[in-house]
Amino acid sequence: MKSEGLHLSCPIPLQDYPQVLLAHGGGGKLMSQLIEKLFLPAFANPWLDQQHDGAVVELDGVRVAFSTDSYVVDPLFFPGGDIGALAVNGTVNDLAMCGAQARFLSVAFIIEEGLSMEVLWQVTQSMQRAARETGVVLVTGDTKVVDRGKGDKLFINTAGVGVVGQRIRVAPDRLRAGDAVLVSGDLGRHGIAIMAQREGLVFESVVESDCAPLVEPVMALLKAGIEVHCLRDLTRGGLASALVEIAECTGRQIEIEERRIPVGEQVKGACELLGLDPLYVANEGRFVAFVAQTHAEMALEILHACPVASGAVCIGQVSTERSAMVLLESLIGVRRIVDRLSGEQLPRIC
Amino acid sequence: MKSEGLHLSCPIPLQDYPQVLLAHGGGGKLMSQLIEKLFLPAFANPWLDQQHDGAVVELDGVRVAFSTDSYVVDPLFFPGGDIGALAVNGTVNDLAMCGAQARFLSVAFIIEEGLSMEVLWQVTQSMQRAARETGVVLVTGDTKVVDRGKGDKLFINTAGVGVVGQRIRVAPDRLRAGDAVLVSGDLGRHGIAIMAQREGLVFESVVESDCAPLVEPVMALLKAGIEVHCLRDLTRGGLASALVEIAECTGRQIEIEERRIPVGEQVKGACELLGLDPLYVANEGRFVAFVAQTHAEMALEILHACPVASGAVCIGQVSTERSAMVLLESLIGVRRIVDRLSGEQLPRIC
Repeated sequence: MKSEGLHLSCPIPLQDYPQVLLAHGGGGKLMSQLIEKLFLPAFANPWLDQQHDGAVVELDGVRVAFSTDSYVVDPLFFPGGDIGALAVNGTVNDLAMCGAQARFLSVAFIIEEGLSMEVLWQVTQSMQRAARETGVVLVTGDTKVVDRGKGDKLFINTAGVGVVGQRIRVAPDRLRAGDAVLVSGDLGRHGIAIMAQREGLVFESVVESDCAPLVEPVMALLKAGIEVHCLRDLTRGGLASALVEIAECTGRQIEIEERRIPVGEQVKGACELLGLDPLYVANEGRFVAFVAQTHAEMALEILHACPVASGAVCIGQVSTERSAMVLLESLIGVRRIVDRLSGEQLPRIC
Repeated sequence: MKSEGLHLSCPIPLQDYPQVLLAHGGGGKLMSQLIEKLFLPAFANPWLDQQHDGAVVELDGVRVAFSTDSYVVDPLFFPGGDIGALAVNGTVNDLAMCGAQARFLSVAFIIEEGLSMEVLWQVTQSMQRAARETGVVLVTGDTKVVDRGKGDKLFINTAGVGVVGQRIRVAPDRLRAGDAVLVSGDLGRHGIAIMAQREGLVFESVVESDCAPLVEPVMALLKAGIEVHCLRDLTRGGLASALVEIAECTGRQIEIEERRIPVGEQVKGACELLGLDPLYVANEGRFVAFVAQTHAEMALEILHACPVASGAVCIGQVSTERSAMVLLESLIGVRRIVDRLSGEQLPRIC
């Protein structure tokens, strides 16, 4: 049954990890190990090796961005969104991070027997609203129902395709020393909204998820001719994980300043209360953009004109050093290395 | 929150179906109701309305077939295949039914905490083998881990894209009176293999799933210039459900003869034992082709030259009547209407 190139034994040390843990899906160290040791060697190809949010493939000369995500968020409805809006926006955003406007989505439901029909209907309505908002069409789908206790109400997978303009190349390997690191707005609202809802935490006012489509600001940057080198949306593992991933896969050193990182008062308070670092908390409507230093000012102006990115700021730059690390200058001026999450901060966040 | 075109209340009567049942995913009447009453109106668009195995969309002038399926089969490994091979072949086959050779797949895992790492690795190896066999590349992916008891070992979603030749139009609305109805081989092996494995049934020799890629025979038909009007792979709900679906959505009358329908002795025996009708048993490597009557002979010759379709036969034709029904002439010469499954024959078959 074995053919050349296929591995003879599991590349993850089974004595250490005989079973998959929640943290293998958490966006931190174990997930990165699972991807690098198991999935990348198994499926080895140049597209996967780029470790981007999606793949840009060529179909008869047209450059097509292609991406997928499953959504297993618990609870299904939360302040500022629901699994349906998340499932549409999440994949639309992954395509935007490849420099593409999403055009068509597939939708696959895995429903646990006993799900309220009303809930399923509400979720489909929410998906359709989100799809209209971003001009994407849900063209093909699948429905599976699994026995009670073998799923959790509803999981949704979406995959999407969109066209990438011929001259656009947005990918980690385009990073250059001196690139400005921009984030599109305040961090951590999605993670805190989910956590508060799930744990029954009550804050002075409700923290709403930032769940939103990011097509508008990305397309505005590209249309204006901003030299965008890399884009990444900040989901599981937050800003820190996205930056570490990019630093590691490019070998570049990324330097950021804590005082410039935007975190709302409520999220800051909730993080203190819960012992969380907002740099690692999940978002669903925020992205980081690496743009040529000379274009940084103009890029910020363009982002500020888009409601979803009106809080965009520059938080640092790509260094000439090649340490493959992210360095953070803290509020008190101390420099520290930003690492990947080693455990699981909060499962089922998206 | 409501905008035009969105429905104000759930279109499925909640007094009848307050909750989603297993049969809503079974390929029969309830699934058809769910799709027609809930999903199609919610996501209304010409692609979905075609009710094909995938959508053919245009991206910068290139006709791209796009399809998705989630795989929730239980058990994960069965005689003749496993969830990994199924997840690759299933989507490759859906694209073939649109007249496209699959080029790129996305892969999304939903893993239950505690899944054996060795099993995950075996499944990825199987996916890679299946991908190589059909020349498709797994270019982008996603991994989610859900808490123990909130999933069932492993669910896999794949979506795929491929190019459809400019002159190729394979879709239900191309059916014509007189078209020959060809099936590519003996029916029901996948369903019986799963059922036997799950229920611990022992037959004289092991029934192996027919799980296989169908690209070769489909491409051979198209390349030879056979006038192929419609293709459908025979998965959940079997041959009967596929034909009823096509008859209903085209308004055509399809006539088949029981004596011509190929069913192996083992499957026949198992069906008798279990009280099943092989017409409704699932397959994962069989398809039905509607081809112009004048091309039927040549089409069969071409199919016979492909190992996966060497058992292809003509089982009937499209009538000039427009009853939107499937009529079966039984072994004793009685004509009866073939209906959709009204319950759930066997959940988690694919």
